[in-house]
Amino acid sequence: MTDESVLAKGLVERIGLEGSLLTHRPENKEKQVIYTDIPNHSVAIKLVLDALTDANYGVISSMKEIDAVGHRTVHGGSTFTKSTLINDKVIEEMEKLVAIAPLHNPPGILGIKACEQIMPGVPQVAVFDTAFHQTMPEASYIYGLPYELYEKYGIRRYGFHGTSHRYVSQRVAEIIGKPIEELKIITCHLGNGSSIAAIDGGKVMDTTMGFTPLEGLIMGTRSGNVDPAIIKFIMQNEHLTIDQVDELLNKKSGFLGISGVSSDLRNVEEAAAQGNPRAKLAIEMFNQRIVRFIGAFAAQMNGVDVIVFTAGIGENAIETREAVCAKLTFLGVDFDREANQVRGQEREITKPGSKVKIFVIPTNEELMIARDTAQLVK
Amino acid sequence: MTDESVLAKGLVERIGLEGSLLTHRPENKEKQVIYTDIPNHSVAIKLVLDALTDANYGVISSMKEIDAVGHRTVHGGSTFTKSTLINDKVIEEMEKLVAIAPLHNPPGILGIKACEQIMPGVPQVAVFDTAFHQTMPEASYIYGLPYELYEKYGIRRYGFHGTSHRYVSQRVAEIIGKPIEELKIITCHLGNGSSIAAIDGGKVMDTTMGFTPLEGLIMGTRSGNVDPAIIKFIMQNEHLTIDQVDELLNKKSGFLGISGVSSDLRNVEEAAAQGNPRAKLAIEMFNQRIVRFIGAFAAQMNGVDVIVFTAGIGENAIETREAVCAKLTFLGVDFDREANQVRGQEREITKPGSKVKIFVIPTNEELMIARDTAQLVK
Repeated sequence: MTDESVLAKGLVERIGLEGSLLTHRPENKEKQVIYTDIPNHSVAIKLVLDALTDANYGVISSMKEIDAVGHRTVHGGSTFTKSTLINDKVIEEMEKLVAIAPLHNPPGILGIKACEQIMPGVPQVAVFDTAFHQTMPEASYIYGLPYELYEKYGIRRYGFHGTSHRYVSQRVAEIIGKPIEELKIITCHLGNGSSIAAIDGGKVMDTTMGFTPLEGLIMGTRSGNVDPAIIKFIMQNEHLTIDQVDELLNKKSGFLGISGVSSDLRNVEEAAAQGNPRAKLAIEMFNQRIVRFIGAFAAQMNGVDVIVFTAGIGENAIETREAVCAKLTFLGVDFDREANQVRGQEREITKPGSKVKIFVIPTNEELMIARDTAQLVK
Repeated sequence: MTDESVLAKGLVERIGLEGSLLTHRPENKEKQVIYTDIPNHSVAIKLVLDALTDANYGVISSMKEIDAVGHRTVHGGSTFTKSTLINDKVIEEMEKLVAIAPLHNPPGILGIKACEQIMPGVPQVAVFDTAFHQTMPEASYIYGLPYELYEKYGIRRYGFHGTSHRYVSQRVAEIIGKPIEELKIITCHLGNGSSIAAIDGGKVMDTTMGFTPLEGLIMGTRSGNVDPAIIKFIMQNEHLTIDQVDELLNKKSGFLGISGVSSDLRNVEEAAAQGNPRAKLAIEMFNQRIVRFIGAFAAQMNGVDVIVFTAGIGENAIETREAVCAKLTFLGVDFDREANQVRGQEREITKPGSKVKIFVIPTNEELMIARDTAQLVK
């Protein structure tokens, strides 16, 4: 962490399924793909550690070199407002949150427990995707529902991608050379899942994802905002259960549902270029919703100084950025078409003197997790 | 219609129920409240006509003076893009729309049929609440859902309060003395039900209500936008049917649900003034959502020239307007606190020279209905 260099990246897939594998990418050594039986998370973590310490393709000499482990954790509810050193009490609190994050928190907890088992005594840190958004004011996170539902179940806006919104907002303040406390920033994390955040003085004022990652923008397969009355209409007319409609909204909507082509914007763009009208429509809708939320958040902060595009689409989709920025001249955006010809690199894409500056900044959630972890174990 | 003067206003209540009554308000004569048995819509219309032609409190000498009847009709679907002279084919089309407007269209059709029965040969006109919004571009009215649901059922954004949005947008252009074709207008119809529309060059670009009047802003008892995934969570945790959740969202949410006090903003304001924190929260949330949508629509049109407040809250709630406008200085709004001390009157509430002008304009849906009717029967 002295020079924040990356020694290796990796990925374990299909835990508990057939065809499970580890992909291990050491810096300056060849990538290893190891197909082996991985029945559970403990075996997976053991495999990762073996790869890291392997005599041939490892990057450290022994597990003793590992001072701490940082875990990305999706849902910290209202309990966790920042990254936290893990102990039994913390795990207990995380287990309570499974009710509102049934898909994401259980495997996260399994990963933590597996590390505790294999690396006893090594400090572990949980970095929550929701934590950064915990600075939101109540008027932003409460829904227009009976208040008792918030008190009883914690039904409220949590927001997600917090680690990414935090990284790019801090990074852009650094690049501009102004204290984040003096900036109104809108961060657009656009990927397979997408969310936008309004960050005033370093604190989140509002964000588009809500109680779950379904709300807000149109995404790969997620609908984003719809009239809530549509759910009843679909259930009754298509004779579906609420679980089936939930699946329809999460897995069959968005780019995929509108275009009928793909959940991947690149494929939708190809189809649109070939004249497919539904693909064109999906792109127009996606751009329009981004424009709307940028306007909404600018109003909520009564102005905006900087807008950041990040994540898969935000860093790479030149046309998306151009279409969105074309609608923002009223805010004082002086867009630079030349500068915008960039993928996956830090760059300002507005002209010098633009009243509102716009940047592309590749996100780096792993770096944030490593920094938080290093700081907490210091 | 030569001078557009109103001869009488009136209201029939509790048709088919006990305690049914007609309130008849002739201009320059005393108000009449007639309690009588009103078993159906034909009897109701007959009663209205009797009151209008009554020797003592009537305003016309006979039914022969009635040249046409205009009907406010909630849902015209995609079928009706403007006000329409009614015939059998039109009623048939309206009946097809009952599937998507089960609460509103059936009584509307009953009223039309009752008039046809009692006033045979008198032309009748349907003025649709959705018609003005039919100018929306596809990217605004399609949801991020499987496109087949739009094709099969017409699941799309329709928007409501169209007659009101049309009236105040035309009226404000008149007051300013510019052709509506050259103006970007945001109209805020804020009442027990609330919606905002973005009107560019006289055409609606987007509006907050959607497939039904549940979507968008926080209202008296309606939730407005929520994460669609919340519906499943409430059903499963509260053990409710989808009809019960739909009722919760439509009847128990909004001001009432958040504040626990009332669905009427005036009562919520009183409670807030007495320090009730949930009442304060409801007001903050309401204001914040208005601000967000104004920002969203300004972005969608890449700018805004005029903002209009209308309907019960829009015309009367001085504090709401002040709180909302305080967040719009970034757009170039130069708010006039003095001028804003107004209820139910046409008035500009920005200072001379304000880049964005803001007006209070009392809505007049009846006048629009009368004008459309007069024009269609000419």
